[in-house]
Amino acid sequence: MEKEQLIAEMKKIVGEDNVLHSKEALYAYSYDATPGHLYMPDVVVSPGNVQEVSAIMKFANEHKIPVYPRGSGTNLSAGTAPLKGGIVLLMLRFNKILDLDLENLIAEVEVGVVVQDINDYVAPHGLIYPPDPGTVKTASLGGTICENSGGLRGLKYGITKNYVQGLEVVLANGDIIHTGGKNVKDVSGYDMTKLFTGSEGTLGIVTKAYLKLVPKPEASASMVAVFNTLEDAGNAVSDIIAAKIIPATMEILDNASIRTVEDFMHVGLPVDTAAILLLEVDGHPVIVADEKEKVMEVLKRNNAAEVTLAKSAEHKEQLWTARRMALPCLAKLRPTTFVEDATVPRSKLTDFLKIVTKAAKDYNVTIGTFGHAGDGNVHFCVVRGNRDEQTWTTELHQNLEKLYAKAHELGGLISGEHGLGTSKRVFFFTQTAEPNIKLMNAIKKAFDPTGILNPEISYSRS
Amino acid sequence: MEKEQLIAEMKKIVGEDNVLHSKEALYAYSYDATPGHLYMPDVVVSPGNVQEVSAIMKFANEHKIPVYPRGSGTNLSAGTAPLKGGIVLLMLRFNKILDLDLENLIAEVEVGVVVQDINDYVAPHGLIYPPDPGTVKTASLGGTICENSGGLRGLKYGITKNYVQGLEVVLANGDIIHTGGKNVKDVSGYDMTKLFTGSEGTLGIVTKAYLKLVPKPEASASMVAVFNTLEDAGNAVSDIIAAKIIPATMEILDNASIRTVEDFMHVGLPVDTAAILLLEVDGHPVIVADEKEKVMEVLKRNNAAEVTLAKSAEHKEQLWTARRMALPCLAKLRPTTFVEDATVPRSKLTDFLKIVTKAAKDYNVTIGTFGHAGDGNVHFCVVRGNRDEQTWTTELHQNLEKLYAKAHELGGLISGEHGLGTSKRVFFFTQTAEPNIKLMNAIKKAFDPTGILNPEISYSRS
Repeated sequence: MEKEQLIAEMKKIVGEDNVLHSKEALYAYSYDATPGHLYMPDVVVSPGNVQEVSAIMKFANEHKIPVYPRGSGTNLSAGTAPLKGGIVLLMLRFNKILDLDLENLIAEVEVGVVVQDINDYVAPHGLIYPPDPGTVKTASLGGTICENSGGLRGLKYGITKNYVQGLEVVLANGDIIHTGGKNVKDVSGYDMTKLFTGSEGTLGIVTKAYLKLVPKPEASASMVAVFNTLEDAGNAVSDIIAAKIIPATMEILDNASIRTVEDFMHVGLPVDTAAILLLEVDGHPVIVADEKEKVMEVLKRNNAAEVTLAKSAEHKEQLWTARRMALPCLAKLRPTTFVEDATVPRSKLTDFLKIVTKAAKDYNVTIGTFGHAGDGNVHFCVVRGNRDEQTWTTELHQNLEKLYAKAHELGGLISGEHGLGTSKRVFFFTQTAEPNIKLMNAIKKAFDPTGILNPEISYSRS
Repeated sequence: MEKEQLIAEMKKIVGEDNVLHSKEALYAYSYDATPGHLYMPDVVVSPGNVQEVSAIMKFANEHKIPVYPRGSGTNLSAGTAPLKGGIVLLMLRFNKILDLDLENLIAEVEVGVVVQDINDYVAPHGLIYPPDPGTVKTASLGGTICENSGGLRGLKYGITKNYVQGLEVVLANGDIIHTGGKNVKDVSGYDMTKLFTGSEGTLGIVTKAYLKLVPKPEASASMVAVFNTLEDAGNAVSDIIAAKIIPATMEILDNASIRTVEDFMHVGLPVDTAAILLLEVDGHPVIVADEKEKVMEVLKRNNAAEVTLAKSAEHKEQLWTARRMALPCLAKLRPTTFVEDATVPRSKLTDFLKIVTKAAKDYNVTIGTFGHAGDGNVHFCVVRGNRDEQTWTTELHQNLEKLYAKAHELGGLISGEHGLGTSKRVFFFTQTAEPNIKLMNAIKKAFDPTGILNPEISYSRS
């Protein structure tokens, strides 16, 4: 189809003001937060309601035009990069919190709402929406549903999947369906809600969700522990869980991450140490007091050089901001920083951290590693340094391949929360058995026979 | 295929001792715990390992022979009834707990293991496996995975789906696949684990699971509250949740259920009252003490005529046994008792209970209602009484149809935990939109192109 005709058709559906097609606009939506993946779409369309999404999908399906749903574009696996041109479907006009049902503890929220805004909205009622990716203040709900985002509170509270109880979805052919809802339990047919959650926009366009809320913990305590070896830090993590304590948060930063954050933020992090653990316990004040003591005891038993409790709300906020700033700070070091996302069984955390540290040395690059230690979910950020682009691309790929292979040997996986997107596809195929790939393709085909939904994320080897 | 040939082939795969085909044996496996659904299979086969399951499926797939996976047969929606003859695949030889990984809090368990045995196995390590259907002492893990079973602790701890982290599955064509595993987080491709969980044996034969365990709560307190109206009981449930207290358990028994249980068990339940709530709070001793007081306060504010705390471990055990015995006791009343399973948003519980009570009066039958009040999940048991079978069948169907329609009007569903099976199919179609049914059929076809897996549970209207 001619680009002009496509633009005209889109304007008919959503109105002139909600279609972008200038070169500058197309460029702005040609990439997300993943470096190295830039592809120009033909048009950027912002539907205002589910009927418009349906009309767009009907048209796109009939004319086999690729469609890429997109929220805030904070994706870290090039999951919204419009690899094959076509329509970027910008969902930010779906920006309303439609209902807060206090009897059932359910919020009905459109997908363009920023995750933090959901929390701000429910906070006065003493409730929280637990999933909190690092990008909680910018990521849209839809993106976090499509990626099944985790976050800092994942260890105790679980991830997005545990809180999405129902969805409104527009299918590839324009059909509007509803899955789940306000019922806490539902075994009437296959669990479509869970299948859409984490499907990276390849099975349908999510427009609205029913979110489970939970009571806000009454109290919390944050602390930071300093370790001279990665081994001690990793062992402390395992030991805390083995002691039957499930902290709300248990995050790790390695030396490269600590140095970088401290350089940019000057919050007094110990720059000469191998690793720090940032922990938070929460709940009833008595539990917090009790678990705080127990956690400190385990940290010290595992040779923590220093354990500091956050003394005030400000101090606590500073600690967690430091953690959240790890990626932005590392990203500022050089023109390109690749943030990777491996997950290993919690007990293998130390082994994997040592592998990454050794790789950085062998490869002679800076790799800053941080992440959700309690979940075994590690983000390692490879900084480009002074390499020319050709060398960098080749070397990076080879080294990532080796690192993901090592994670796999430890029983791990290539993604704990960032998704496959375009950037992880190749590693996915080396780690996934043929029958699994066949099934995923069959599911994709069942939902999207013409293959227009986010076609860059194909589970086909070809 | 000739029955004799089928039997001979099965003996070749699993050995003579593991194939049953006498008339008595076939009869014994012709039904499950659902009355009124009795269909003779051709053969009952007990494989001893995953390779044997694979060989059976390859053969069955090639010859288009229906296969019905079965554990303990406690299914309440005729989900294991061999409607179209063929092979009952008895999974009880998969009876081993293969590993308990204390660092990752994961148990690796074969599907023939009884759920309570998992709990007994992990208890010495201070751990629990939370899903606890009423049949926890008889149901096999595989059945609870295929049905996504809930249970008494569902309110606070969630259901089976929240604890199954990985699976070994034999597909319809005999391929053996693995999904998920010991990684807490996993977004590498579609979530197959969650799709198989609750799929009622229609997508594959589950042989092994990785189960997430959680620390055993340090303390707990049980209580029983007596109400003179269903309304007060229902309101108390909503008010407790609205007070941000999530009890481990919050169960309701109506007058008919109370009378029946008391008749059989003589535990001192108040037979002249409209309803009782059975509650348990658990966790840190301080929380238990605190929440206990708060819950009692809410119960009294909602006109509880009496609130009694369990005074001892024996008293507590007695209360919970009374609850678990509701179904067995009601089932003893008459030759046939249908246990139904509706779910409504928690806030609509009272409305639905009143509808059921009225229906029992209009219909002039005994309906005993009990269930997981905190989840809005209600089991209403229709007792046949003196009706002849023809009248009973017609009337029952009509009345159930009306009741499920009412649940649907309240935003509810036809099943919270018992599944669709054979017995719920017809209600499913009246409540499910065409595009959803099409998608479910497409998924089924993707996994089982020849349609041999548990073919009685078809999502096709035909």
